[in-house]
Amino acid sequence: MVTTDLEALAQRVSVAARSVARSSSLARDDALRMGAEQVLVDAPAILASNVADLEEAKAAGLGATALDRLRLASMAEALRSVAAAADPLGEVLEGSVRPNGLRVERVRVPLGVVGIIYENRPNVTSDAAGLCLKSGNAAFLRGSSSALRTNRAIVTALRRALEKADLPTDAITLVEDTSHATAVQFMRLRGLIDCLIPRGGPALISALLEHATVPYVLDGDGNCHVYVDAAADLEMAISIVANAKLQRPGVCNAAESLLVHRSIAARFLPRAAAALEGVELYGCERTRAILEGVEAATDEHFATEFLSLAMSVAVVDDLDGAIEHIARFGSGHSEAIVTADMVAADRFVREVDAAAVLVNASTRFIDGGELGLGAEVGISTQKLHARGPMGLRELTCAKWVVRGEGQVRE
Amino acid sequence: MVTTDLEALAQRVSVAARSVARSSSLARDDALRMGAEQVLVDAPAILASNVADLEEAKAAGLGATALDRLRLASMAEALRSVAAAADPLGEVLEGSVRPNGLRVERVRVPLGVVGIIYENRPNVTSDAAGLCLKSGNAAFLRGSSSALRTNRAIVTALRRALEKADLPTDAITLVEDTSHATAVQFMRLRGLIDCLIPRGGPALISALLEHATVPYVLDGDGNCHVYVDAAADLEMAISIVANAKLQRPGVCNAAESLLVHRSIAARFLPRAAAALEGVELYGCERTRAILEGVEAATDEHFATEFLSLAMSVAVVDDLDGAIEHIARFGSGHSEAIVTADMVAADRFVREVDAAAVLVNASTRFIDGGELGLGAEVGISTQKLHARGPMGLRELTCAKWVVRGEGQVRE
Repeated sequence: MVTTDLEALAQRVSVAARSVARSSSLARDDALRMGAEQVLVDAPAILASNVADLEEAKAAGLGATALDRLRLASMAEALRSVAAAADPLGEVLEGSVRPNGLRVERVRVPLGVVGIIYENRPNVTSDAAGLCLKSGNAAFLRGSSSALRTNRAIVTALRRALEKADLPTDAITLVEDTSHATAVQFMRLRGLIDCLIPRGGPALISALLEHATVPYVLDGDGNCHVYVDAAADLEMAISIVANAKLQRPGVCNAAESLLVHRSIAARFLPRAAAALEGVELYGCERTRAILEGVEAATDEHFATEFLSLAMSVAVVDDLDGAIEHIARFGSGHSEAIVTADMVAADRFVREVDAAAVLVNASTRFIDGGELGLGAEVGISTQKLHARGPMGLRELTCAKWVVRGEGQVRE
Repeated sequence: MVTTDLEALAQRVSVAARSVARSSSLARDDALRMGAEQVLVDAPAILASNVADLEEAKAAGLGATALDRLRLASMAEALRSVAAAADPLGEVLEGSVRPNGLRVERVRVPLGVVGIIYENRPNVTSDAAGLCLKSGNAAFLRGSSSALRTNRAIVTALRRALEKADLPTDAITLVEDTSHATAVQFMRLRGLIDCLIPRGGPALISALLEHATVPYVLDGDGNCHVYVDAAADLEMAISIVANAKLQRPGVCNAAESLLVHRSIAARFLPRAAAALEGVELYGCERTRAILEGVEAATDEHFATEFLSLAMSVAVVDDLDGAIEHIARFGSGHSEAIVTADMVAADRFVREVDAAAVLVNASTRFIDGGELGLGAEVGISTQKLHARGPMGLRELTCAKWVVRGEGQVRE
């Protein structure tokens, strides 16, 4: 068997991962704090690399992210705050003594090597490396060509910190070959990558679904709905809809679709439209009979995560209609109902299949910080391993530990 | 977009899954108990189908599993015992009130549609259907051609029970097209299968890694080691090694490899060999210098899950040597150390990367029943979602439920 350069690199990361898994959280937190310092000390080199990346990206017609001292300061701050977070490792998830005297525990341990494929934004380099290191994992990073020099400079700073903390430098490793072929090879390092997290657009996700043989966790789209029920407090509904759509339209937990019970549509929709001034609305026929000048919504509109000042609107017959609509068009991210009707709220909570369901609250609350998980790796819309906001805990797994005094099976 | 027959079928299963997810555990347990009854009532039809399968399989040179009344009785018994197990759903995994008053919970809910691809053994049909139904999921079953009639007869019985319990019959659905092309299409029903569990050999697993776009959980190989440390009680070590190898050699938690500290090898190995009489041993050079007539072990032997009366043996320099050997050749299933040295035990527990590590106990204890999980879906050697024995709990996921009084994000 021929070992490729990438495999040889992955093997080194794998060895480093075992050593990090054994390290104390004190050493890892030290490395994180020294990493924060080193990013600032190395700022001139990182910013110069970034300038070179920006120039080359511009010449090649690629997008690239400009860094400045302020952005480096927030990267350093993020590393310090991860260092200050509680250690997720070692938690005993359950434990019991079996009838034969075996003492059984399930203990939280690192995953091993966490691979991250990401595009452009160089802050992912330090954020992801920091979260991986905190949770006892090695970070195996594959960024984009348009940020290669910047990523390299950041990784160099972080590796210096690892060295100072007496941790293996390979625990934060950047793949410098940014070709598409290498990305595909990266997704197929089965046995060498324990968990792959893609941070990128639909093209990356479909490449992953097609080619990956390593285990992965997807950070999914958010086609989030707010359903305003017949029994909604309309003031509250307006405030929630406006917040969910407008507070930060470009993020995955922003609302993309408004569903309104037909019995209140005539009263509610004109006020909602006023509160959503500046938002391009795409409405169903019943919506358009109430709101003038709204463009007709197609199924495609209803299925779209706009991530911008646009929103689809449908009038539904009842709670069942809302649940059906969400089942058909939702992406399983965050779905909200506004109602004072306890039965309707409970049915919505039970029957809507999504990472998060909310009653009388803005979809914008579904993120790691707001739910108390601390720093966030992403928001998963898949059901296996991690569902919803992924924090440090989702970068770990469990190990069964069984202690006996010579027990054998009858 | 053209909807294929398989997609149309999957859509029906998907609709049924939503209805099962809403059903009461009383109704599901009723269906399980009535299913047990119906399997016995339908015994003549099931056994006749099995005879037809056996004849056709024989003519085609395929393997097939013969059923009789006794086997049907144990299938029924398994369904009854799943009915009697505790409901895994609705458990509140965590809960808190956020500073802004939002009440946040993470609640255990069904996965949705669980797909199972399996070979030959028709008892998987009723076992898997039972576990899926108990955990509020729909079972979408794709068995092998050599058991098609038998599987169909079993599914017919179980669907009768669903009907009697007022649950949708599509909640247990068998794919009757057993072509390879359909299996591949099955693995690619993204959005329609929430979790795929393969029960089969290496060919199935590699097809899955290559083609699957749906999330899956792998039931992995068990190349399990017993390491006999310098500080081992040799009597205990002999008893554990013999139990781990001999008690049931054909299962994944049986030991396949024996590692022995060099300081005790000369004393221990002859006694171990006597206790392992009838087992074909493949030893390293140092083993062969102690045990006469043992065949030389290659790396391939050390990497092999024999599942038979064969075992590889290596003398290692020390605990580090044992840990390195396991890191190189282990499959991450179950690894045991025999020692009275607490430091060695703790290091082994921490540094060996496997679903389960055992101190002074036989590897044979790593299964769902022995660890108190009840009926077992399989044993996962992957790290995401489920690691180690998978019980009913591993057929569920979590949903975030957030309740407020109109909170919006600042």
